[in-house]
Amino acid sequence: MKIAIDAHGGDNGAKAVVDGAVLACMEYDCEIILVGELAELTKLLSTVPENARKKITITDARNSLDMHAESKVILKGKRDSSMAVALTLVAEGAADACVSGGNTGALVMGGTFIVKRIPGLSRAALATVMPSQTGACMLLDVGANSDCKPEMLLQFGMLGSLYMEKVMKIDSPKVGLLNIGTEEHKGIELYVESNKLMREKATYNFIGNIEGRDFPMGVCDVVVCDGFTGNIALKVFEGVGLSLYQQIKGVFLTNILTKFAALLCKKGLKAFKKKMDYKEYGGAPLLGLCAPVIKAHGNSDSIAFKNAIRQAIFFLNTDMISEIKKNLEV
Amino acid sequence: MKIAIDAHGGDNGAKAVVDGAVLACMEYDCEIILVGELAELTKLLSTVPENARKKITITDARNSLDMHAESKVILKGKRDSSMAVALTLVAEGAADACVSGGNTGALVMGGTFIVKRIPGLSRAALATVMPSQTGACMLLDVGANSDCKPEMLLQFGMLGSLYMEKVMKIDSPKVGLLNIGTEEHKGIELYVESNKLMREKATYNFIGNIEGRDFPMGVCDVVVCDGFTGNIALKVFEGVGLSLYQQIKGVFLTNILTKFAALLCKKGLKAFKKKMDYKEYGGAPLLGLCAPVIKAHGNSDSIAFKNAIRQAIFFLNTDMISEIKKNLEV
Repeated sequence: MKIAIDAHGGDNGAKAVVDGAVLACMEYDCEIILVGELAELTKLLSTVPENARKKITITDARNSLDMHAESKVILKGKRDSSMAVALTLVAEGAADACVSGGNTGALVMGGTFIVKRIPGLSRAALATVMPSQTGACMLLDVGANSDCKPEMLLQFGMLGSLYMEKVMKIDSPKVGLLNIGTEEHKGIELYVESNKLMREKATYNFIGNIEGRDFPMGVCDVVVCDGFTGNIALKVFEGVGLSLYQQIKGVFLTNILTKFAALLCKKGLKAFKKKMDYKEYGGAPLLGLCAPVIKAHGNSDSIAFKNAIRQAIFFLNTDMISEIKKNLEV
Repeated sequence: MKIAIDAHGGDNGAKAVVDGAVLACMEYDCEIILVGELAELTKLLSTVPENARKKITITDARNSLDMHAESKVILKGKRDSSMAVALTLVAEGAADACVSGGNTGALVMGGTFIVKRIPGLSRAALATVMPSQTGACMLLDVGANSDCKPEMLLQFGMLGSLYMEKVMKIDSPKVGLLNIGTEEHKGIELYVESNKLMREKATYNFIGNIEGRDFPMGVCDVVVCDGFTGNIALKVFEGVGLSLYQQIKGVFLTNILTKFAALLCKKGLKAFKKKMDYKEYGGAPLLGLCAPVIKAHGNSDSIAFKNAIRQAIFFLNTDMISEIKKNLEV
C-alpha cells in the first residue's frame, strides 16, 4: 500500500514529515510517496538508512499552501501545491491514502473535490479520536462543516460508528448527539431535529443526547455535532488538558520533596501523559471520501507524523469505505 | 442587605441550603430570607446558633419546581413555588438579591419576567467564572439564550467586562469572542457579524476572536459566545477537569510509594484542587437583571451555597447595575 505525504504541510518543516515517514516505513508494511520540493526532499533523504530509503519515492511539487490561506486556493491557483498534488495521486490511483499536516480548510476542500466524496453522502466530516476516562472517543465534525443540516448529522453518526467499529475495534459503538441537555426537546433547532431524525433513522447504536461533560467521562464512543460546536469542544478539551497538565507539573516542580514524589509516581504519570498526548492518536481522519485522507496536527513532530501514517494504514486495512457505500445504498 | 434564598432549589435538599445560609450569616454582614416549606425550614433552623438564627427569616412557599420542568411553569402554574416567591421578594424590594440552585431555565425565565431586565438590554446572560492558568475567566452566555444575535453578544461583552472589573477587581478586562479561529472571517455568520460589531462598537477592551484552547490558558478575562456554544464549552471544561482529576488521583492511589508521593505533594495538590473546584467560585450570576440573581450549582453542598451567597453580597457591594444602565444610555 502506498501513502502520499504532503511534505510541506506542518509547522515544523519538511524534516519532521520526512523523519515521520522514515519511522513509518521501518515499522509498517507500506510505501511512501513524499510530495514536495525535489531538491530539499532528496537532501533530507540522503542520510536515511537504505532499508527505509528504498520504500520512499519523491513526487516533485514546487508550491506549498500557507496555513492561513483561504480554502478554495487549493482548487484554483494552488493546484501545483504539495497538498493538491498528494491528493491528486490518490484520486488517480497512484496512492491509496494521503496524510497532510497543512491548512485544514484546504485539505477538506481538496479532499472533497479532488479525492471526492462517496456518492450519496452529503458532506465529509473531520473527525478526531480523543482520550476518555474509559478509553477513546471520536468527536465529529470538528471543523469541516460549520453549517449543518439534520441529515448530515445523521450521516456523521454512521461514519463515526463505522470508524470506531472497523478501525478502533469497538463492538457496536455508542453514538451520542452533543447537546445542552439529555432531554429530546433540548437545544437549538438543528439539534432537536437531528435527535428526532437519529432516533427514527439511525442504523447504528444511537444513545440520544449527551452533554459536554459526559464524553470525557466515557459515556459513549462517538460524539456527533456540527463543525463549529465540535471545533470549540475539541479545543476546549485540548486547552483544559494542557492547562491542567502544566499545573500538575508545577505542583511536582515545587521543591526537592515534590520532585522526589514525581519520581515515585513516574510510571503512572508517564502512562497518563501518553494517554493524554494527541500525538499518540495520530491525526484527524476526513471521513466520507473515496479514500483515506488524514489531517495530522499542524505542529506534529516526527512521532505524530508516524502515527498519522499508521492511522492511514489501519484505515486502509479495513473495509470501511465499502461499508459506508453499503450503508448509503440502504 | 437581604438575600432571598430558594430553599428547595438544589439536588441535596433544604438542609444543604439552610446550612449554607447559616455559614454565610456567620461570615458576612447580611440577612437571609429562606423561602420554602415553613414547617421544614423551622425545624432545620431549630438547632442553629442564636447569632446566626436572628439574621434569618422564613417566607413560606408550599410549592417547588422540578429540575426538569419546562421553564415557563415559573410564570404560569408555579408562581407559588419557592423560586418564584424568592424572585418576587426581590422584585418587590423586600430582598436585594436572590440565590437558587434550582431549574436553570425557570430561573432565567423568572429572573427576566419577575425581577426584570435592565431597560435597553436585549437579553440577560447566564455567566460563570472558571479557573484559568493565570487566574479566573468569565464565560457568557452559558445557557440562557440558545439563539443569539450580534447585538446580544456585543452586550454580553459589556456585562462580562463590568462584572470582572467591579466584582473580580480586574483592571480593563480583556474580552474575547469564542470562535474556531482568530481571523475575523472565521466561524458561522453570527460570529463573523458579532466580531465586526464588537470591533466597531465595543466600549470595552475587545481583543478579537479567541479559540477554545485559549481561555483555559488565560489569554483573556471574559469569553463571549451564544448560550448553546457556551453551555457545551462549560461542560466540556468541567468534564475534562473531573476526568483528569480522577485519573491523577488514580496515579497516586496505585501503591504505597505513590500514596507516600501524594503526601509529599499534599500542599500543592490541595491548592490545585481548590482552584479547580467550582464550589469555590460560587454560582453563575444571571447578568443584566435589575438586581443580582445567582444560580448555584444544582448539586451544591453547604459550602457552595455559602459561596453563592458571598457572590451575591460582593455583587451588591458594587455599582455594577447602575454602571450597566449608564452604558446602555450611551
